[in-house]
Amino acid sequence: MKWHKLKKHRILETELIKNLKWSYATKEFDPSKTLTKTDLKIIKEAIQLSPSSHGLQPYKVLIVENPEVKAHLKQVAWGQNQITDASHLFVFCSYQDLTEDHIDELFDLKATTYNKEKSTFQGYISFMKAGLKNKTPEARRIWNSRQVYLGLANLLNVCAELKIDACPMEGFDTKQFGEILDLNSKGLDAIVLAAVGYRSKQDQFQHFPKLKKPKNSLFEIIS
Amino acid sequence: MKWHKLKKHRILETELIKNLKWSYATKEFDPSKTLTKTDLKIIKEAIQLSPSSHGLQPYKVLIVENPEVKAHLKQVAWGQNQITDASHLFVFCSYQDLTEDHIDELFDLKATTYNKEKSTFQGYISFMKAGLKNKTPEARRIWNSRQVYLGLANLLNVCAELKIDACPMEGFDTKQFGEILDLNSKGLDAIVLAAVGYRSKQDQFQHFPKLKKPKNSLFEIIS
Repeated sequence: MKWHKLKKHRILETELIKNLKWSYATKEFDPSKTLTKTDLKIIKEAIQLSPSSHGLQPYKVLIVENPEVKAHLKQVAWGQNQITDASHLFVFCSYQDLTEDHIDELFDLKATTYNKEKSTFQGYISFMKAGLKNKTPEARRIWNSRQVYLGLANLLNVCAELKIDACPMEGFDTKQFGEILDLNSKGLDAIVLAAVGYRSKQDQFQHFPKLKKPKNSLFEIIS
Repeated sequence: MKWHKLKKHRILETELIKNLKWSYATKEFDPSKTLTKTDLKIIKEAIQLSPSSHGLQPYKVLIVENPEVKAHLKQVAWGQNQITDASHLFVFCSYQDLTEDHIDELFDLKATTYNKEKSTFQGYISFMKAGLKNKTPEARRIWNSRQVYLGLANLLNVCAELKIDACPMEGFDTKQFGEILDLNSKGLDAIVLAAVGYRSKQDQFQHFPKLKKPKNSLFEIIS
């Protein structure tokens, strides 16, 4: 963090804010540039460390490198070139439902990580399982789908820190994505994509000013 | 970013990853510690700079400082002490619907920011308005509610960078929150909360190891 003289006031410019200002939704990628194995490892770690409701991480991220699969996916995503030109396509998929199995999996992990018997957590397990039953299947599906955006934000932020470009994308046919990637058999829905790679020098969008709602329409203080 | 010798391999520890490891969902806050005006300014800027679908930012963040309002909200959030003990409560609310007005607002801002006539964007405006009609009101509501999690992630990340603690919370009665904060008249739904302040030294959770799904259950490479 550094102190900058900005608009007459000294305000703190954090790394995160600097990175958010640097990044933009990349429209044209340079197809000749690819991520290294180290880049991929770091991006995966940032997603893995993302928070989620109860720590359930109710999603899976498919990382598509295969050019033929990318070309196929592009056809059902309005032909957007980012899908084939970017080095990697991250497909964030949430579980179609949240079941008792997911809760058991979480507490198996908890027992191992904390080096305790799973039965120690029985009260919490029962509380969470009862909570599941209080939600409709549709409510659980919506709940799961929201959590992936915490992972997406961390992908975007870590990429910006590494000066890797990215483009989050929601414009695709979820049903067709499901078929191509065989998601149904895994109980997954494709929710949002991130094309990740390096910007083309020709991409005009990198020069556009950031467009953000003014603070007074985005925030309300209740004092 | 620094290179660390970690587990026999040299891997890059980014600022984001360092911050994600430092942060945890704070259960006990120190009620005597409050955020400064500068802290608040920075947190608001990190949320404001968050990406969103088409840049629509279909949400509003209420920042509750008032102790009586916080006490009232706590009653309809399972009595969780974070709400009253933390310095500030951020209530992320998404718009119940996304209307043509939101699109017009975006392009008014675009015209001003880019110093162009709004009519320059007529093709894009019509495309987006047609897209709205293709979604059901429920689909638009779900879409909006997901975007707030990008803002939440940036709140959490910027707080961690500033060494400010936070606790994201979904356990509350949305209907009652709506009534207390008069959200219906503003066309808003409360989606997720973040209690923000400083951890109590007594909070045992700060000492627990991070609990995260292993990479092989979270990722799948399609190569």
